[in-house]
Amino acid sequence: MYEVNHYFSQLPQSYLFSRIAKTVADFRAQHPEAEIIRMGIGDVTRPIAPAALEGMAEGIRAMGSADTFVGYGPEQGHEFLRSAIAEGDFHSRGIAMADDEIFVSDGAKSDIGNFPDILDSHIRVAVTDPVYPVYVDSNVMGGRGGKLQPDGRWSGIDYMPCTEANGFVPDLPAKAPGVMYLCYPNNPTGTVLTHDQLKYFVDYARTNGVLILFDAAYEAFVSSPDVPRSIYEIDGARECAVEFRSFSKTAGFTGLRLGYTVVPRELRGSDGHGGQVALRDLWLRRQTTKFNGASYVIQCGAAQLYTPEGREQIQATIDYYKSNATMLREGLTGAGLTTYGGVDSPYVWCKAPAGLSSEEFFRLLLDRCHIVTTPGSGFGPSGEGFVRLTAFSTHELTAKAVERLKHLI
Amino acid sequence: MYEVNHYFSQLPQSYLFSRIAKTVADFRAQHPEAEIIRMGIGDVTRPIAPAALEGMAEGIRAMGSADTFVGYGPEQGHEFLRSAIAEGDFHSRGIAMADDEIFVSDGAKSDIGNFPDILDSHIRVAVTDPVYPVYVDSNVMGGRGGKLQPDGRWSGIDYMPCTEANGFVPDLPAKAPGVMYLCYPNNPTGTVLTHDQLKYFVDYARTNGVLILFDAAYEAFVSSPDVPRSIYEIDGARECAVEFRSFSKTAGFTGLRLGYTVVPRELRGSDGHGGQVALRDLWLRRQTTKFNGASYVIQCGAAQLYTPEGREQIQATIDYYKSNATMLREGLTGAGLTTYGGVDSPYVWCKAPAGLSSEEFFRLLLDRCHIVTTPGSGFGPSGEGFVRLTAFSTHELTAKAVERLKHLI
Repeated sequence: MYEVNHYFSQLPQSYLFSRIAKTVADFRAQHPEAEIIRMGIGDVTRPIAPAALEGMAEGIRAMGSADTFVGYGPEQGHEFLRSAIAEGDFHSRGIAMADDEIFVSDGAKSDIGNFPDILDSHIRVAVTDPVYPVYVDSNVMGGRGGKLQPDGRWSGIDYMPCTEANGFVPDLPAKAPGVMYLCYPNNPTGTVLTHDQLKYFVDYARTNGVLILFDAAYEAFVSSPDVPRSIYEIDGARECAVEFRSFSKTAGFTGLRLGYTVVPRELRGSDGHGGQVALRDLWLRRQTTKFNGASYVIQCGAAQLYTPEGREQIQATIDYYKSNATMLREGLTGAGLTTYGGVDSPYVWCKAPAGLSSEEFFRLLLDRCHIVTTPGSGFGPSGEGFVRLTAFSTHELTAKAVERLKHLI
Repeated sequence: MYEVNHYFSQLPQSYLFSRIAKTVADFRAQHPEAEIIRMGIGDVTRPIAPAALEGMAEGIRAMGSADTFVGYGPEQGHEFLRSAIAEGDFHSRGIAMADDEIFVSDGAKSDIGNFPDILDSHIRVAVTDPVYPVYVDSNVMGGRGGKLQPDGRWSGIDYMPCTEANGFVPDLPAKAPGVMYLCYPNNPTGTVLTHDQLKYFVDYARTNGVLILFDAAYEAFVSSPDVPRSIYEIDGARECAVEFRSFSKTAGFTGLRLGYTVVPRELRGSDGHGGQVALRDLWLRRQTTKFNGASYVIQCGAAQLYTPEGREQIQATIDYYKSNATMLREGLTGAGLTTYGGVDSPYVWCKAPAGLSSEEFFRLLLDRCHIVTTPGSGFGPSGEGFVRLTAFSTHELTAKAVERLKHLI
């Protein structure tokens, strides 16, 4: 009989978001009359920008006629979109970027999950704590986890705590890892790194030969002038960092599925025999072998986001969510709670009052306010004592949530 | 410095289809006046069925309004599509299938490439020869290749030759492997297995504890009554086979991207410690961790293919390609060439005349007839001496190709 990948069996059974969904479903069954406000999972609610809708409609029209039909596209993405990305997200901000360093895909989660494929299975991985579970789980599946410890950490992974004490700037591991995941604006804490703070990590990575896997899924929420939207705003980042981008939060593409990954030519890993290999070439090989490109129709929609109308429309949506974040942050603070994030981010990281645990506070908010949050402990041990709230609801429901919170404590 | 996955470096540099594209581009540059007919890569040319276009347009309209907006969907695919698939592709043909055994994705290539993730890295893999390169390359990337031999075979992989001598029914490996890839109707040979022939493989797999990974991407082209369209038409297949399906060839979704994988509950692999693990659970875990579902809009389009109108429309396109295949097969035979396939398949496998090699015959067809084919040797050693032609061109170009072939020999 064939054997399965036994690393899978080491993963705890229940994925965080599935577990929460079940708790909420149970609550709903018991309280069918309650108006539940969902601020747990980071899904968006605003409609897709008209420019993108028109782009997709155009793509569909093309598919309806033999003269304009589009079959297999380049695995890396259509040139019209990659050049729009290079210009709109990089050149326009003074960052050099070649079209062929950009790899369009069906979403950042796929790319983040698959990227470790091209790295050695014994590489040491460092993650911030708390952390988006995909970074950890995908490496455990790839054999890099070691053993799961009673404290919820994996022996093979280095954790960089982000706490109130260090101002949510990650503590570096004792020994330089091979790969370091950073996500800024951060999921789940909503905190950011300034230009100087991020430069510290870039310099560290270059000095120590570390590859930074930088998740910039929330960059569109940055408005503070000293906070970078791309790691490539930092000198030297092209030599040490891959960047993952998503259209999910920027343009509401959570159900449409589109993202991209930047792999600069300068990135080189060791081949284990004294030679070096360009990561861009490996990722291209991975994608051409195991992926067949993102949907043409969705790429047509995304390209329209880079027009003046498209930019204006998605900025209006971002502003909408940002004003929710402000409302939420001020509401929580007004209710006597301590919060972090929510300024350059759609996430507010709220401290549990009176020594409650994450899960106790999560239950309290569900039971008393009918608000669904995410327990911080689900993101790692250093998330204990916090919950994450998202600003992706409507103005009306966010205002209602804030009203309910007033009477919480 | 971090190390890369050194198995990638073992792969030959050039992917078959990229190499052909370059040869053709060079030819075009040298002969700008030549009308080149592309029968190499298996991409389709007919427009998308009106039913699917309308389904996608409806999906886009939903995305334009907050009331009907759809965000993250289930990683396994929306229930409306999975139930349409279960009914339309299985129940209607008398095959039992639960909705939650069906995993919708962005395409069969992704699923085929990613599926080995859930299997042990030391598992022995068997493939037919010739073979779709993705089966081999994805396993080499996963460390199962061993060493590349001078004859183009990998020492760690078992090859099952499909030749004129055995009527293109694969020879079984000397020792039972852990996993066996089968693709029927076959890419590249266009040949099929009858119900009894496929039953032989299913029985072998059950007796020997082998997992069959069955690629049914071309099932829509089957019209012979004794040729199965799904491996689950064979008794016992639920206990030994995963099936990959694609909307690419069935409905022209090569640029839209959609496929699905069937993982029956009965499939169980060894955990290496005397226990057994359900493959369905592992694949679900893999997909929820590293994938975020296929695009809602494209799923809306696919669901409409299962309506009476949708079925009729895609059948008309399949019939169109099938009549091309007949024209091509008869034209090649009429020109004195020996062919296989092309009956229940869009591929015709044509033997090189006068002892020419695959590449020589490929060059001859390009130079003399301006027809692009795929050299059979690119699919493995047993493909030597053949080229693959596809029926996905237009009637007009196929007729023109046949006309040119008349004067070849």
